[in-house]
Amino acid sequence: MKKFINMPENVVTEMLEGLLAAHPDLLKSVENNSKNLVRKDAPVQNKVAIISGGGSGHLPLFLGYIGKGMLDGVAVGEIFASPSSKQILDVTKAVDSGKGVLYLYGNYGGDIMNFDMAAEMAEMEGIQTATVIGTDDVASMPKGQESERRGVAGLFYLYKIAAAKAEEGASLEEVVEIAQFTNNNVRTMGVALSPCTLPEVGKPTFTIEEGKMELGMGIHGEPGYYKGDIQTADEVAETIVSKIYDDLVLEEGSKVSVLVNGLGATPLEELYIIFRKVKNVLEEKKVSLHRAYVGEYATSLEMAGLSVSVLKLNDELERLLDQPFVTPFHVQP
Amino acid sequence: MKKFINMPENVVTEMLEGLLAAHPDLLKSVENNSKNLVRKDAPVQNKVAIISGGGSGHLPLFLGYIGKGMLDGVAVGEIFASPSSKQILDVTKAVDSGKGVLYLYGNYGGDIMNFDMAAEMAEMEGIQTATVIGTDDVASMPKGQESERRGVAGLFYLYKIAAAKAEEGASLEEVVEIAQFTNNNVRTMGVALSPCTLPEVGKPTFTIEEGKMELGMGIHGEPGYYKGDIQTADEVAETIVSKIYDDLVLEEGSKVSVLVNGLGATPLEELYIIFRKVKNVLEEKKVSLHRAYVGEYATSLEMAGLSVSVLKLNDELERLLDQPFVTPFHVQP
Repeated sequence: MKKFINMPENVVTEMLEGLLAAHPDLLKSVENNSKNLVRKDAPVQNKVAIISGGGSGHLPLFLGYIGKGMLDGVAVGEIFASPSSKQILDVTKAVDSGKGVLYLYGNYGGDIMNFDMAAEMAEMEGIQTATVIGTDDVASMPKGQESERRGVAGLFYLYKIAAAKAEEGASLEEVVEIAQFTNNNVRTMGVALSPCTLPEVGKPTFTIEEGKMELGMGIHGEPGYYKGDIQTADEVAETIVSKIYDDLVLEEGSKVSVLVNGLGATPLEELYIIFRKVKNVLEEKKVSLHRAYVGEYATSLEMAGLSVSVLKLNDELERLLDQPFVTPFHVQP
Repeated sequence: MKKFINMPENVVTEMLEGLLAAHPDLLKSVENNSKNLVRKDAPVQNKVAIISGGGSGHLPLFLGYIGKGMLDGVAVGEIFASPSSKQILDVTKAVDSGKGVLYLYGNYGGDIMNFDMAAEMAEMEGIQTATVIGTDDVASMPKGQESERRGVAGLFYLYKIAAAKAEEGASLEEVVEIAQFTNNNVRTMGVALSPCTLPEVGKPTFTIEEGKMELGMGIHGEPGYYKGDIQTADEVAETIVSKIYDDLVLEEGSKVSVLVNGLGATPLEELYIIFRKVKNVLEEKKVSLHRAYVGEYATSLEMAGLSVSVLKLNDELERLLDQPFVTPFHVQP
């Protein structure tokens, strides 16, 4: 195992200490638990608060999206493990300003269980919550079973749109509605070249042989639908866009935003080579591109691979997407 | 070789097509050569222009630093290869507003030759240029031979400080002076866990055995000064800070900025674990931290590893460091 770590069991707490120390102007912990982080200025008055959370090991997901124009708070667990319901409740109490709290996270069993328990406890304390679950991974379940799909990098768009709406003073009901609408209009597909290694396990979570790749793989190494020879960047981009195009029901004249996300070890250079072809394929199909994001947005430790997310825009989504945000990792002026 | 590419000889041009397509609001090419990029609003009137350049394969270095509050233009070559003097001249002409142009780049023979030739050609065309060369890699040459050291991630600070000065309307002489002063006050040291593979070569540029690491390695795989067992993150951070502390002549009461830079494959989580210890060691030595940067700032394709840069601040450097900038990769509000 080749990692810059100390004791494997301390990876998450030490990472969080570093994160807090590096961004004291943006973040603060709740109840001295660095696994519970909120905006420095939380609770923000007269605003619906938005919380996310999940396992560690996916930076910038989840903690990296705390900030103005993005999330109010986040609870994380150990590497690839859910935060506890107590954590989520603590974060809920720290961010609620009385306008209610949206729980916005990916479709994983452990997270659902703990967020649901936290919602019940919050209700008992008089805090109104609502839940929208991200299900953007088009490869994880066939069409018709969209609600059973995993949530992956497309969560970025859910955060961005819902948060922009909340910043405008929308009600919890309105923020839920736009978050759900965004989820219905975003699709992601990933491809992996090599695995990652969990620090406490010490060996790779799966194997992909030399010269092979796996299409449709999830961000914890969940199996994809195709394992075979590495294709060219153009072939990979074409395959992914084609799959998303059909599933999302794009057509001539559609307008989209694209996110090409690196899973950890893949160089930025390769992400741009993929983006180039994604844009070309969309243009051939007369789909226009509004705003592109290329970089690391939801990783899997040092996994080599990438994902492409496409958000189908309407006027409101476009307007909300264009609003600024400031987080420790990404800033949109 | 596991990469998302098409023909290896097209990696750089296709990457650049993608970069331009993703950031049309920030970048434009010069003379239809996508290896020559400048600010969308170039030439900026009444401002000293700053140009950098070098080989591709280091994103965000170099192209990623074009933008307001950063560089005016960049010329890049193929992977790890210098741009031509003709390219640099073309960029020079595209960014010069009559106040002169600073060439600011790392200490590599090929780059020096081509920038110097471009400077001569620019002079013949009536454009005033000056040169400051980054030499921040403390491990590459011993103390006393600072000017022979390589330039690595510390270039970020040279860009940032010099550009902020230029934005204030400073003269070429003043911008040169602050850039040189910054270079004298920044040190970087890197450590690698695994190599990268040049697309046109197809196999790793060097090897580091399982369980081993190499301290002091350069961003093209130039040999370091120690190859041995992987140390803990805390040991690595202590070694690097100790080396930089002595070389930079820090003392109780010094104030610094720190950049923990990932070389490509190393997860953000590990960078924060390293940052945590860097900060702790500096605090033990009564050195205070003003502003931290953690992420990918100067990479080597998919090399696993990181570097730590420390900039010793005075009041002027601190003020200039705090000015905003907007580039395709990093934004400081």
